Amino acid sequence: MSDNVYAVSKVVGTSKKSIEDAIENAISTSSKTLKNLDWFEVKETRGYIDKDKVAYYQVSLELGFRYEK
Amino acid sequence: MSDNVYAVSKVVGTSKKSIEDAIENAISTSSKTLKNLDWFEVKETRGYIDKDKVAYYQVSLELGFRYEK
Amino acid sequence: MSDNVYAVSKVVGTSKKSIEDAIENAISTSSKTLKNLDWFEVKETRGYIDKDKVAYYQVSLELGFRYEK
Amino acid sequence: MSDNVYAVSKVVGTSKKSIEDAIENAISTSSKTLKNLDWFEVKETRGYIDKDKVAYYQVSLELGFRYEK
Amino acid sequence: MSDNVYAVSKVVGTSKKSIEDAIENAISTSSKTLKNLDWFEVKETRGYIDKDKVAYYQVSLELGFRYEK
Amino acid sequence: MSDNVYAVSKVVGTSKKSIEDAIENAISTSSKTLKNLDWFEVKETRGYIDKDKVAYYQVSLELGFRYEK
Amino acid sequence: MSDNVYAVSKVVGTSKKSIEDAIENAISTSSKTLKNLDWFEVKETRGYIDKDKVAYYQVSLELGFRYEK
Amino acid sequence: MSDNVYAVSKVVGTSKKSIEDAIENAISTSSKTLKNLDWFEVKETRGYIDKDKVAYYQVSLELGFRYEK
Amino acid sequence: MSDNVYAVSKVVGTSKKSIEDAIENAISTSSKTLKNLDWFEVKETRGYIDKDKVAYYQVSLELGFRYEK
Amino acid sequence: MSDNVYAVSKVVGTSKKSIEDAIENAISTSSKTLKNLDWFEVKETRGYIDKDKVAYYQVSLELGFRYEK
Amino acid sequence: MSDNVYAVSKVVGTSKKSIEDAIENAISTSSKTLKNLDWFEVKETRGYIDKDKVAYYQVSLELGFRYEK
Amino acid sequence: MSDNVYAVSKVVGTSKKSIEDAIENAISTSSKTLKNLDWFEVKETRGYIDKDKVAYYQVSLELGFRYEK
Repeated sequence: MSDNVYAVSKVVGTSKKSIEDAIENAISTSSKTLKNLDWFEVKETRGYIDKDKVAYYQVSLELGFRYEK
Repeated sequence: MSDNVYAVSKVVGTSKKSIEDAIENAISTSSKTLKNLDWFEVKETRGYIDKDKVAYYQVSLELGFRYEK
Repeated sequence: MSDNVYAVSKVVGTSKKSIEDAIENAISTSSKTLKNLDWFEVKETRGYIDKDKVAYYQVSLELGFRYEK
Repeated sequence: MSDNVYAVSKVVGTSKKSIEDAIENAISTSSKTLKNLDWFEVKETRGYIDKDKVAYYQVSLELGFRYEK
Repeated sequence: MSDNVYAVSKVVGTSKKSIEDAIENAISTSSKTLKNLDWFEVKETRGYIDKDKVAYYQVSLELGFRYEK
Repeated sequence: MSDNVYAVSKVVGTSKKSIEDAIENAISTSSKTLKNLDWFEVKETRGYIDKDKVAYYQVSLELGFRYEK
Repeated sequence: MSDNVYAVSKVVGTSKKSIEDAIENAISTSSKTLKNLDWFEVKETRGYIDKDKVAYYQVSLELGFRYEK
Repeated sequence: MSDNVYAVSKVVGTSKKSIEDAIENAISTSSKTLKNLDWFEVKETRGYIDKDKVAYYQVSLELGFRYEK
Repeated sequence: MSDNVYAVSKVVGTSKKSIEDAIENAISTSSKTLKNLDWFEVKETRGYIDKDKVAYYQVSLELGFRYEK
Repeated sequence: MSDNVYAVSKVVGTSKKSIEDAIENAISTSSKTLKNLDWFEVKETRGYIDKDKVAYYQVSLELGFRYEK
Repeated sequence: MSDNVYAVSKVVGTSKKSIEDAIENAISTSSKTLKNLDWFEVKETRGYIDKDKVAYYQVSLELGFRYEK
Repeated sequence: MSDNVYAVSKVVGTSKKSIEDAIENAISTSSKTLKNLDWFEVKETRGYIDKDKVAYYQVSLELGFRYEK
């Protein structure tokens, strides 16, 4: 990793199923426009409630990716 | 949402199974006294350990709900 | 708990499966050297990405354990 | 103030006009159920966007009020 | 504690004597309306000054209490 | 909102008039390059001073926008 | 700006009208004792409530000013 | 309080006896140079250890005082 | 202090009496396994409540100690 | 600066030599895709260790740049 | 240090060369008006960019100094 | 890295020369008791002042190291 530069983008993934699934959705959708995705860090975990149950999770992530040379 | 006011309550849900299940338990129990629950935000994720395994998760949430007019 | 003293250690557990599994791995490995593990608190949730999927989760925890008398 | 106890509630006010108006709306609506409102502190200032303009502000506040004796 | 849900309320206690006394006052007054108080966490320690001495301490706490079933 | 992914960009708007005007300027200018703007969150409010008056406000925002499918 | 040193002072301005007016009041009063005021950063926005309306805003600022050579 | 401006200074008081005594020492010493002291807020509580006992407490405070007109 | 290296350990002391006593208990117990204790910093002040009174304080500290050469 | 809008991007620069060199590398590489770079703010300073020496520094920055009109 | 009181001032030093040089400049300039400077703590590290290189570093510090008796 | 567990220790390195040198000193001294050191993160940068110059830097780090299997 030693002479690379990385960019960090913030994205929010959503899922009806789980926190992990919201993370995978965020990464999968972001990968269409961001290449060389390398790591993530969860910044906030939220969600919406419908009829007293979780309607879906919203997980905001920082995504790190390597600048192409 | 534009001319509503929301209240935010903090609750702690527990579960032996998973973080998501602790969130659902917090929402389900709170809904007995709080009406119009609308969103949540995870503030802390903790737990207790018994015999070197997770005994249960404790997830503290802020719960937003609409003031009845 | 009332006249005990507790120490708190920070550890990072990893897992390919889930956040909960990374927590269990951190506790299980730490229990080989730390006795009387009592509670944990999640401090950061990160991970590495490979081919646009989560390669593994890295969950950093504070682990509390009772000082032996 | 010296031998009183205060409770602190978190609320979110909304307004199409301004941040100050969202604060006034939060206080005005909360005052129907909370008596002796004494102070507020802004915790987050957010909003929704429609057609590239602010649709409304959402200001979350902590509201302090004196416990009735 | 394992299948309970807890609510968390924020209160501010005051005392002319000490930080510990402000905490006791907050708990004692809150216990008139909140049942099953279980734990507290100090969030801010402030106070007012009169004639270059502490007039009284103001200690804001989060108070956790068990939801009655 | 439930199966969307959102990106979050940070921008700084400036205005000589007010905090709200700086927010509108940030959104308006950003909308030339970012489509589907959906929400904002104020992160810092600063400004420059000239002759002991506010010369202009600088408000930094996170802007959320929906990924086009 | 490149070979200057700046001092930073914290002040609290109040106003019955608006957040912006409280900022101007803080700067105007501070300018009687602090020369070369250059920038500000809002740190907290609070206020007092009277009869369920904002009685006045209290805005705490960091004020930066250039050391005279 | 409504048309005043306040300045905020940070000081560190020390005491061999208690946290409250360190606060009183900070206020008492500061009052020789700062007039109209009005409130304080504890920011950090530290101390030095000698022979496995607290040698003295160091409590850092923000002190608010009214600008003289 | 100038060419030393220090380690920092986190511990939680408890006491039925006071915050200062919980700090002393944490230091006293830690000193059985950690040599050359030099300073502490309070990170969290919590406690448990029994019958609407403080049952005991829990004070978490960072403890700094000099590496033996 | 008064009627401009700025965007803020997060990047991570690396260097075997120093923190300053990691900052310069982040700016230099980012300047290939971001025009009008104006300021930076260091958010985190980390690094990797090899054979008990720093292998390289990783410095994460927010980079501000002016929107072209 | 045990019965002293310390004041803490915030300053921003600048340098074209390095972070350490900006710290020295802040201390050196502050020492003309503040006596008995004792310690510092770095709070923010920023800088301005010119032609895709660091034009100068801006390091904001808290400076602690002993009150003269 | 994928099925490892890491421990994280906090240490403070000092140096008369530079921030980087304080980091190297912390790592070098820690490596006598901690094996498999892998990464660090700077948490605080402080220092002591003597005769209006930096006497030495104190840099506190979190050090990550792999648990031996």
